[in-house]
Amino acid sequence: MNKYILKIQTKDEKGLMHQITKILYESNVNIEENNEYVDNDNKLFFMRTVFSSDKDDNIKNKIINALSSDSVITLNEVKKKNIIIMVTKESHCMGDLLLRHFSDELNINILSIISNYNNLSELASKFNIPYKYIAVDSLNREEHEILVTNELNKFNNIDFIVLAKYMRVLTPNFVSNFEGKLINIHHSFLPAFIGANPYKRAHDRGVKIIGATSHYVTSDLDEGPIITQEILHVNHTYSATDLKVAGRNVEKIALSKALDLAIEEKIFIFNNKTIIL
Amino acid sequence: MNKYILKIQTKDEKGLMHQITKILYESNVNIEENNEYVDNDNKLFFMRTVFSSDKDDNIKNKIINALSSDSVITLNEVKKKNIIIMVTKESHCMGDLLLRHFSDELNINILSIISNYNNLSELASKFNIPYKYIAVDSLNREEHEILVTNELNKFNNIDFIVLAKYMRVLTPNFVSNFEGKLINIHHSFLPAFIGANPYKRAHDRGVKIIGATSHYVTSDLDEGPIITQEILHVNHTYSATDLKVAGRNVEKIALSKALDLAIEEKIFIFNNKTIIL
Amino acid sequence: MNKYILKIQTKDEKGLMHQITKILYESNVNIEENNEYVDNDNKLFFMRTVFSSDKDDNIKNKIINALSSDSVITLNEVKKKNIIIMVTKESHCMGDLLLRHFSDELNINILSIISNYNNLSELASKFNIPYKYIAVDSLNREEHEILVTNELNKFNNIDFIVLAKYMRVLTPNFVSNFEGKLINIHHSFLPAFIGANPYKRAHDRGVKIIGATSHYVTSDLDEGPIITQEILHVNHTYSATDLKVAGRNVEKIALSKALDLAIEEKIFIFNNKTIIL
Amino acid sequence: MNKYILKIQTKDEKGLMHQITKILYESNVNIEENNEYVDNDNKLFFMRTVFSSDKDDNIKNKIINALSSDSVITLNEVKKKNIIIMVTKESHCMGDLLLRHFSDELNINILSIISNYNNLSELASKFNIPYKYIAVDSLNREEHEILVTNELNKFNNIDFIVLAKYMRVLTPNFVSNFEGKLINIHHSFLPAFIGANPYKRAHDRGVKIIGATSHYVTSDLDEGPIITQEILHVNHTYSATDLKVAGRNVEKIALSKALDLAIEEKIFIFNNKTIIL
Repeated sequence: MNKYILKIQTKDEKGLMHQITKILYESNVNIEENNEYVDNDNKLFFMRTVFSSDKDDNIKNKIINALSSDSVITLNEVKKKNIIIMVTKESHCMGDLLLRHFSDELNINILSIISNYNNLSELASKFNIPYKYIAVDSLNREEHEILVTNELNKFNNIDFIVLAKYMRVLTPNFVSNFEGKLINIHHSFLPAFIGANPYKRAHDRGVKIIGATSHYVTSDLDEGPIITQEILHVNHTYSATDLKVAGRNVEKIALSKALDLAIEEKIFIFNNKTIIL
Repeated sequence: MNKYILKIQTKDEKGLMHQITKILYESNVNIEENNEYVDNDNKLFFMRTVFSSDKDDNIKNKIINALSSDSVITLNEVKKKNIIIMVTKESHCMGDLLLRHFSDELNINILSIISNYNNLSELASKFNIPYKYIAVDSLNREEHEILVTNELNKFNNIDFIVLAKYMRVLTPNFVSNFEGKLINIHHSFLPAFIGANPYKRAHDRGVKIIGATSHYVTSDLDEGPIITQEILHVNHTYSATDLKVAGRNVEKIALSKALDLAIEEKIFIFNNKTIIL
Repeated sequence: MNKYILKIQTKDEKGLMHQITKILYESNVNIEENNEYVDNDNKLFFMRTVFSSDKDDNIKNKIINALSSDSVITLNEVKKKNIIIMVTKESHCMGDLLLRHFSDELNINILSIISNYNNLSELASKFNIPYKYIAVDSLNREEHEILVTNELNKFNNIDFIVLAKYMRVLTPNFVSNFEGKLINIHHSFLPAFIGANPYKRAHDRGVKIIGATSHYVTSDLDEGPIITQEILHVNHTYSATDLKVAGRNVEKIALSKALDLAIEEKIFIFNNKTIIL
Repeated sequence: MNKYILKIQTKDEKGLMHQITKILYESNVNIEENNEYVDNDNKLFFMRTVFSSDKDDNIKNKIINALSSDSVITLNEVKKKNIIIMVTKESHCMGDLLLRHFSDELNINILSIISNYNNLSELASKFNIPYKYIAVDSLNREEHEILVTNELNKFNNIDFIVLAKYMRVLTPNFVSNFEGKLINIHHSFLPAFIGANPYKRAHDRGVKIIGATSHYVTSDLDEGPIITQEILHVNHTYSATDLKVAGRNVEKIALSKALDLAIEEKIFIFNNKTIIL
């Protein structure tokens, strides 16, 4: 028996559950997990079902035929997702992902690490993960991204690109090429401190809480759909550097939780927001 | 159109969702919220559905007929729940419930307050809630509970009895008379500090976190199904009294959240644990 | 023996502690609590000492004479602080303060409640607190504030004015008249969602955390020194209204904690930030 | 200029601060951080001072001479602490410490890793840390501990032994040999779930919060002074295994925070509790 994840986003109407569960029942699958959400404001229905079955049985097509044509339906067999990690200089998020990968905690293959600095190549090599250093040097943003894109295009099976403290802003063009695959960690509880130097600005503002936000990347900087947010309490004794150090704990946890939700196919995106089932 | 809440607990088997949603579809109801949980270890299926409809349409009986005879099925129209509050001397939980009731935040009628002390009668009278003082004096536990039971029996429509810091241990006999209706707040994160004086013992143990637990009451003291738990971080500067004062914030919030879940009929109980949908 | 709180803010230099503790020692006081903070960036020293003594012994003047002339020094006997509560329509923060006052949890007298609506007069009267309704009607902001100021000026001993969900923006002129006394609760984790309708905007942004911030009011809206921040985790099932309801719990707790810190004289303000000792 | 940490625990009496700060002032040091705590119940005074100075100036002896003979006084130059990590099979805590060490986040040397299993030797070797596998085989507890002790005794400068998920109970004899140096992570919010299998028991109890506790080890299992506690909210969908996996995040953070406090010499122990300054 194989395990599958079915995801449906469609407009809400009476009898929907009845129709869908009929197809699943007639295909004789074992439903292991089933969650729905009805967005009553937008008349939308979201459903995620995990089932096991000894054959695919053409379920996806049957559901496509049963539902309205503007529905979004995916049905994937559960297997390891292929990810690329992009980093700049800080090791904590990348290191955390490497450790979780090493201990088989995340259901992923790490195809490669790409960085605009060479700092973290030693850490990558400890875990035998290819590390591609693509220097910025005198390249402008577009020129650099062409090199990055060339590197990414060597892989034809990328599920997610994890920006694990990749500190260069991406162009809308780059983002649109990898839409829905780019997961970022931002070092503030968004929408507070959009942009650069959030810890410095948090210190200047005298906040009593700092946070981290993992989100899908869209062409609007730091405005993509939020997946996870984590916070910690701080006080006046924290310097801007102390905030940055303390923040690493929430950054790496927010990011790995978000990645885990993504690889488990638990996330729907609608109206620039996430529905997590 | 009226609003209804349907709750089903039954043994898990293929086609279950299909059967149930068929009945709902054929009765032409509007499903507003639907949640299920499959307990794969115990092969049990839990479902809570909120729907609106202009008639009841005998849905409950149709579902009873469709499912196995050991299923537990309830279908109630949504309306205010009737609650009794029992207290001893401390005002914060009772006061919080009175305020939420005053501002229509909880969908309840407060039928009466019963106490083994007279301390809080003034506060009750501010909100025009009957307050019945039943002194313990020289009565033993059973004798006192007979008086409390007599008072409770004056009401024939009690949905929940909220022990909002009622500090007397109840006998198994009393508990069994009101099984599933008794919601308690315990001033520790259970199972830590079962029994008396949890803040004193938390102080002696030097914990860095204190908490509160709201749970259904069973005949085993502090061992009933947990509904909500809330915590807060503390440090060495807190005296036992400071812990007690700080703990009030989490006690009142844990209790009102638990009550809200109960009145929304979101809680299933199985194996001395709660499933909250 | 009376209890006193000494607060010192002065420029940091060697021997400071030695000088100050010499004065306290020679006055033969019992130090019960002592906390300092050195801001090494700004070369500033903050100290808060709680001591008991049978006489004041002119300690404040001795310390003033010992320290540089730009120091800020207060020495107050511990007693109930006098507060005014200002509200608009929502009852939860005001109700929580009334309950805490009723149970003697906060060391305060509530002199009066002032509101631009009459909604909450009934609740105030339950607790026998004067409620002054000052309608806005066709008054402009300045005209309305004159009436509020006249009301405030009837009291010559206001320690703090608590804006417990007072939803009118105050003019810089009004703020400057009561500088350092105005404590507000803002319904977001500032600096996120400065301004109006934070819950609506939090919902639109799809945040996974909402919060509340209590802060001193300055002439810049929502930009004053932050005292406390509290958060709670939310998800896609929360409507904007659900966020607002859930947020009440953190609003009232953030506000009462902040007020407690203020009345205990634990807060220093420097560079638009709070140091809490 | 070197940096020093002075720690004093002594019986509280008038003039104490004056005496101590006099010595520091006359030695012309720069005080960078100063914190005290007075335990009024036990009439004890705790103080931690960080200062920089170009010479030690015999300060420790001057303070010893000034204070009562039962005082506990330490004065150490700030430098890297030497630690041993002990583990069994789980990698997350050890891996997290290795990463933090690799990125210079913790001010430590890792002298060696000791384990009763060989599972984690590969991970240790990635970071070039000696890994000593001491099999239990048919050895009894005392025999095995002799081998561990022999290994520990090869180092004459161990500051802390970090039990990073070391799953064997230590004998009182072993513990007494390394008293005050053994820091453990227990996978529950103590005192809940003392002993074995806390996640299984948390699952059986149906808790809504799980936690982790880092504490000094004493001869009473899981009863030593608590340093840090971290929690996370869970629900009915978590299996015992899910709890265990989710718990890793709080385990590794509770442990690394506790170790950080220990190496910064911020922890005092009194009455089986920690005072953290």
